Amino acid sequence: MDNQTINTLLGHRSVRRFKPQSINPELLAGLLECGLRASNTGNMQLYSVIATTQEPLRGELCKLHFGQCATAPLWLTVCTDVARYHQYCRVNGCDEPYGNLLWFTSALVDAALCAQNICVAAESKGLGFCYLGTVNYNTRQIAELLQCPKGVVPVIAIAMGYPDEEPRRSERLGLDAVLHSETYHTPTDAELVETHRVRDDDPFNKKMVEENGTRNYCEIFTTKRYTRSMNTAVSNDLLQFLKDSGMWDF
Amino acid sequence: MDNQTINTLLGHRSVRRFKPQSINPELLAGLLECGLRASNTGNMQLYSVIATTQEPLRGELCKLHFGQCATAPLWLTVCTDVARYHQYCRVNGCDEPYGNLLWFTSALVDAALCAQNICVAAESKGLGFCYLGTVNYNTRQIAELLQCPKGVVPVIAIAMGYPDEEPRRSERLGLDAVLHSETYHTPTDAELVETHRVRDDDPFNKKMVEENGTRNYCEIFTTKRYTRSMNTAVSNDLLQFLKDSGMWDF
Repeated sequence: MDNQTINTLLGHRSVRRFKPQSINPELLAGLLECGLRASNTGNMQLYSVIATTQEPLRGELCKLHFGQCATAPLWLTVCTDVARYHQYCRVNGCDEPYGNLLWFTSALVDAALCAQNICVAAESKGLGFCYLGTVNYNTRQIAELLQCPKGVVPVIAIAMGYPDEEPRRSERLGLDAVLHSETYHTPTDAELVETHRVRDDDPFNKKMVEENGTRNYCEIFTTKRYTRSMNTAVSNDLLQFLKDSGMWDF
Repeated sequence: MDNQTINTLLGHRSVRRFKPQSINPELLAGLLECGLRASNTGNMQLYSVIATTQEPLRGELCKLHFGQCATAPLWLTVCTDVARYHQYCRVNGCDEPYGNLLWFTSALVDAALCAQNICVAAESKGLGFCYLGTVNYNTRQIAELLQCPKGVVPVIAIAMGYPDEEPRRSERLGLDAVLHSETYHTPTDAELVETHRVRDDDPFNKKMVEENGTRNYCEIFTTKRYTRSMNTAVSNDLLQFLKDSGMWDF
């Protein structure tokens, strides 16, 4: 069933080390046009894309992502954006009713679909990229650095450029874990252990368990990478930022 | 700069009317495998995909989407899913710290990237699809119908099948509206009017203004399609559902 599109999707690898070569503006514009074509709620396009390439800004942004992907020549910060739509409302003498949870989640999905189109197009052209979940950890600082007004929330960060490494294709849980036929089916513990062998028995992951000195792979996440206290702190900060940004008026 | 992938992305049209022909299971599995390859936070894959094809369930689900896309043979409900990860935690004797805003938004992005890969792959194979924002309006009822346990939140709905129409390629705001160079730049009102001409002057949209009897295109959204009172009610329902589902513990 393969074709170029499907081979591109199946061949995806996150790239974190890049050559110095920049991405030419015409190519970048072409990739972004692919992003704009993605489906979105009511065709309202409640997102913005900030492309950062120039120093010192690029380096400062990288610092807010804890120095990850330091060699990436291009940083895309995709934001949910009701500010532009509310301005459109004001210009048209209309109500401005989109600063609430429904529209944050709707815009978040739309931003993600747009981002993924950009990334798929990029990979089809030989570029590499990495999504950076750290956008959630320094949302307020990133918004300030990038001069986002109220109503604009950085939600997705992508480091992009020409790959300077050939990373492994990381393992994934399979359809036996993720796909549910007709309705949701909760597995038995034994079934879950079975579908998660691909994860727990992965040589790379087993090495991580050794290096981290945890009892198992799961415990790396719950005690080191994404702990309860960190999750709670970040969730509170994120909610406060949404409130300050006028996205919690309901 | 085109190639098959980019042509697929640029050629996207939402399809809402489908032939009776079903999607064969091997093809569907192949599309879903493309979904699994999408980037995701920490490779935790905090999402599930429910594929619904059988009556009466398919028809009941369609009703919860207000009867849209009634002829679609396949419905994909993509859910944020911390239930599976928490079960993995329990099996491994670990804490279960992912029922909070940070992980709802992280999982929502991951679910969307997975969904978009599935849809892009589908379109490359001649299938059509439509994302249904109505998943946010009846989240609780959809979760109940599809037997989602606590921690599983339906966030994206896709109707899919072989197209039985050739819909128009709807207009989009361009990069002059959506792309920001280096930092965010708020347009002047005059600039905004200029970048939104593609929307306001679109013949299809102008006809909608006539049919709706509004002063302008924007007002269709603020007074008819997505009004303040509806947005407030849905946001409150959604938040209550997240709380009931154990996704608001912080």
